[in-house]
Amino acid sequence: MVLERSGTIFMRNIKLTIRYDGTAYVGWQRQKNGVSVQEAVEKTLRKIIGEKICLIGAGRTDSGVHARGQVANFKTASHLAPERIKRALNSRLPEDIAVSAVEEAGTDFHAQFSALGKRYRYTILNSDAKDPFVRRFAYYCPQSLDLSEMRKAARHLVGKHDLKALQNSGSVRKDTVRMIRKIAIEKNGPLVYIDIEAAGFLYNMARNIVGTLIEVGRGKMPAVRVKEILSGKDRRYCGPTAPARGLCLIKVIY
Amino acid sequence: MVLERSGTIFMRNIKLTIRYDGTAYVGWQRQKNGVSVQEAVEKTLRKIIGEKICLIGAGRTDSGVHARGQVANFKTASHLAPERIKRALNSRLPEDIAVSAVEEAGTDFHAQFSALGKRYRYTILNSDAKDPFVRRFAYYCPQSLDLSEMRKAARHLVGKHDLKALQNSGSVRKDTVRMIRKIAIEKNGPLVYIDIEAAGFLYNMARNIVGTLIEVGRGKMPAVRVKEILSGKDRRYCGPTAPARGLCLIKVIY
Repeated sequence: MVLERSGTIFMRNIKLTIRYDGTAYVGWQRQKNGVSVQEAVEKTLRKIIGEKICLIGAGRTDSGVHARGQVANFKTASHLAPERIKRALNSRLPEDIAVSAVEEAGTDFHAQFSALGKRYRYTILNSDAKDPFVRRFAYYCPQSLDLSEMRKAARHLVGKHDLKALQNSGSVRKDTVRMIRKIAIEKNGPLVYIDIEAAGFLYNMARNIVGTLIEVGRGKMPAVRVKEILSGKDRRYCGPTAPARGLCLIKVIY
Repeated sequence: MVLERSGTIFMRNIKLTIRYDGTAYVGWQRQKNGVSVQEAVEKTLRKIIGEKICLIGAGRTDSGVHARGQVANFKTASHLAPERIKRALNSRLPEDIAVSAVEEAGTDFHAQFSALGKRYRYTILNSDAKDPFVRRFAYYCPQSLDLSEMRKAARHLVGKHDLKALQNSGSVRKDTVRMIRKIAIEKNGPLVYIDIEAAGFLYNMARNIVGTLIEVGRGKMPAVRVKEILSGKDRRYCGPTAPARGLCLIKVIY
């Protein structure tokens, strides 16, 4: 592994846990049409460490999607202590990005390939009044939602399925079988949380699951229709893709 | 009262309860240097009702201060039902303002003069890591805070006092005696809430109390100094004015 040793320089592997308000970003991954979170963190790291840094993220979050537990790693020859990197990052990063942990990782750790799964949370504001305080992080749905019907529908999704019908049409993935470990739907005052944990996510899968569950909750689709969507494998029968602002990458499981 | 009856037109008195993220506004009250919340709501009401509307707010919140329970009232000849006004406001107001209640009020109700008191909450993020999700609504204080010392200092403030030392120097108020009914300091994970309830607030009083309590919490000032500040009535001894972003008008008491 050339990266681990170049001449006599030992390369450390540093793991970051990152939170961001994704509203102003084109997503995690570098894009031509705007600033990505990856770019913002790499630029700040470069100033702190004085080396060009290449960050590997656990998952690409889409434009406008948030994270409380995005994980990324990078190799560096620097001797800076993790605690010092953390402090320097938090004082220099833009206000909408913060680092909650900086740790020394084993040389084999790879934020994307070492991940065993991810947990996303989708937040719905289900109330007759909007709330400016959660508007950046919740999708506003004023219609009443039948949570027990939504839970019924969710139960059909848990397990190993071909989720072709739940990825967006732009996607080119051939292997569309994914294992959904858990979908939990909880209410907390006017907020409804939909937590989805899976070994892997297809393009827009989380937001398509949520869009479909909302259709069920509003009574526009029977819970059992989800079974037909899965067996038909056709995107046209599932609900609309729920807006990005409600989605947050909560945790990457290693 | 000319306003109540002009000719044969009966004027209704409508009470609004308003929430806003104050980040983008110059405060509640109309100002020359930017957009106020009052202006934004009046403009939207005018479009809905088709009359020029004059809103009376319970309290002027400063630039950057938020509200979950600001109250305002206006007189109108319109027959629109409160529920319809509420729906129309929430669909037309900017995203950072929402109306949580619209009610018919008695003709004598005056949002400012009928108020018996107000409750403000100041939120501090007290953690070694910043949090982009609360950055608009919390002041970030990474140093550890001794809450029991802060509570001791707060106890000296509760009651009826001349609070001249706790208003900012720009203020021209002659009568600076105010009744502080309650100061509660609670911790919820990394967030510290300081709730202040008083019959009336002087200019920047809430933020000066918080700034002083933070100095005590950080060990830069003994709790008992607060007594000296009150008796000295001199602004110079109290802590710095805490930043606007942490302050929120929670409730107006009638």
